[in-house]
Amino acid sequence: MNQEKLNELKQWMAHNKIDLTYISDPGHIAYFSGYKSNPHERVLALFVPLENDPFLFTPALEVESAESSSWKFPVYGYLDSEDPWIKISELINKNSASHAIALEKEALSLARFEILKTHFPSTDFSTSVTPLIEKLQLIKTETEIDKLIEAGHWADVALEIGIKAIRERITEQEIIAEIEYKLKRQGVRAMSFDTLVLTGKNAASPHGTPGNTPIIPKDLVLFDLGVVWNGYCSDVTRTVSFKEPTDFQKDIYNIVLEAQLKALDAAKPGITTGELDDIARNTISSYGYGEFFNHRLGHGIGTTVHEYPSLVTGNDLVIEEGMCFSVEPGIYIPGKVGVRIEDCVHVTKNGCETFTKTTKELTIIN
Amino acid sequence: MNQEKLNELKQWMAHNKIDLTYISDPGHIAYFSGYKSNPHERVLALFVPLENDPFLFTPALEVESAESSSWKFPVYGYLDSEDPWIKISELINKNSASHAIALEKEALSLARFEILKTHFPSTDFSTSVTPLIEKLQLIKTETEIDKLIEAGHWADVALEIGIKAIRERITEQEIIAEIEYKLKRQGVRAMSFDTLVLTGKNAASPHGTPGNTPIIPKDLVLFDLGVVWNGYCSDVTRTVSFKEPTDFQKDIYNIVLEAQLKALDAAKPGITTGELDDIARNTISSYGYGEFFNHRLGHGIGTTVHEYPSLVTGNDLVIEEGMCFSVEPGIYIPGKVGVRIEDCVHVTKNGCETFTKTTKELTIIN
Repeated sequence: MNQEKLNELKQWMAHNKIDLTYISDPGHIAYFSGYKSNPHERVLALFVPLENDPFLFTPALEVESAESSSWKFPVYGYLDSEDPWIKISELINKNSASHAIALEKEALSLARFEILKTHFPSTDFSTSVTPLIEKLQLIKTETEIDKLIEAGHWADVALEIGIKAIRERITEQEIIAEIEYKLKRQGVRAMSFDTLVLTGKNAASPHGTPGNTPIIPKDLVLFDLGVVWNGYCSDVTRTVSFKEPTDFQKDIYNIVLEAQLKALDAAKPGITTGELDDIARNTISSYGYGEFFNHRLGHGIGTTVHEYPSLVTGNDLVIEEGMCFSVEPGIYIPGKVGVRIEDCVHVTKNGCETFTKTTKELTIIN
Repeated sequence: MNQEKLNELKQWMAHNKIDLTYISDPGHIAYFSGYKSNPHERVLALFVPLENDPFLFTPALEVESAESSSWKFPVYGYLDSEDPWIKISELINKNSASHAIALEKEALSLARFEILKTHFPSTDFSTSVTPLIEKLQLIKTETEIDKLIEAGHWADVALEIGIKAIRERITEQEIIAEIEYKLKRQGVRAMSFDTLVLTGKNAASPHGTPGNTPIIPKDLVLFDLGVVWNGYCSDVTRTVSFKEPTDFQKDIYNIVLEAQLKALDAAKPGITTGELDDIARNTISSYGYGEFFNHRLGHGIGTTVHEYPSLVTGNDLVIEEGMCFSVEPGIYIPGKVGVRIEDCVHVTKNGCETFTKTTKELTIIN
């Protein structure tokens, strides 16, 4: 449970005259409450009344788990045979005024909002709590950064396993199986997203799907992976070469590396996230490959693998100490070659520090 | 791509005077288009105009993958530096009237709906397409059932691997690692949800989190798992005993088994989903354990692991041939014991057939 962040939420509520906040994103519920769960189509919610204790609302079958988490306030459950919205309305009315309820508009479905509105027809639902949560999560505390460092360490371990597994004709899926098996055996419970191992032409699709493609000599092999560790995520990408690469592959690799290093070098308090994207993009464009870098430079990372801020041209958000985000330029030439190099960093007083330490010299596996 | 279902959608649109349908759930986009992807916070959408060809809208970095899928109509991409909603509005206006747009209200966030509304201030957004999609997916075709049978086979394989892995002091996570490793080596790319292996008291929490708990003699070990195979999901639960169980454990097991078999026996065209839940629930209640069966009897299964219908008391949906759903009663006595037995079935002319075949005689591992 994060009492400090709950207090900050209440201060914001008082300032904005909000009677109650309804948090619906499971990741954000975990952030405030310490209770993490995927409710699928059932209703999981955190309600924070301004004038009363917060409470969790969960499916009946999760009440016990929620109560045994670090959450210290009440947990109310509902059975599959009950209408959760009737119970929610009763609980809200018992615990709070409802002139103004703040919603997580990014994480609440239109269908659920329409139901809620029928129960509170005269409530003001205009305020979204999303910008506040983004702001709360933007600057990480030391404890959070320590967890991200540990998560980064496990991503390095995963890369080491994956790179060691490379041999002629092993498939992408076999390498993924090997990585995840060895990590789980060491106590890593979850990956932060579906592990990507893409070889040869497959790597030229930045979000391609790994399959049964075998690795053959002169393939560049792209790894994009991360773990969840103590609730915090890692995310790293390396591209390595199986057998001696061609000059063209080396050139592309070195351009991406130059772009990444320049952006990392510039990542410090005072610069904007848009300017960082421009630095990497201009580097790649100066070699004539700008059109093949078809995604933003990076994204925030924390309890979720993609969070605020977005490092994209035009974003004038100024970088501050404690922000954590990915720096991941790439060049993807369809049918030919794909290279991406990514580290996540935390911003320090004068620069930034990467969470992942795996070498970025082009690794050649013979 | 599923042209037949797209045609049924268009018929529904014509009948309901809908100019355009906006599909936003990635699973449903895959259902109609054949293109499956998790866009994270980016926008992925399928637009179906009544009077024109449907089109996919994806992040730029996914355009190539989408075009190389079975989807035969246009794919439009947007860069991270672009406003997707401006592009979407232009595309809609170019391809369709917009007096009435049907939305997937269960799968569209309130935030996105509010943006869409600013672009189409005079459009009627009152119609939800969710009930139609539920209806389309409710009765599976023979081809779909064949895929679900294959997915069920892989769930049986997974159980076999997991049950074989049981030995004294192996942990829940180690067994999960073993199952997923061996499946991936055999070509299974994804599990349909996070694999559950819960032992002893942990199994008494129906949606507990597997950890480093070691298996010890007289533990009941609960497996709940499934795979995605050719886009279709499986879902199965078995509970086995490590070493000779106590009489109490055997009694609880046999009650759950009796409840499951009775419900399976009754599952045929003509009965309602609520009545099926009642049959299992009354069986368990007749032994005095009703309060410990704290979830519905089951859920639909198909391209997603939880879909329409819900098998819950009071639901008067009448079962028809071709429906596919889980039958999964359980008894969970906190701190003591947890047993669940689950198969997914397809309804036949006169009964039903399970997708999973692993024995339900109580397996005792010595």
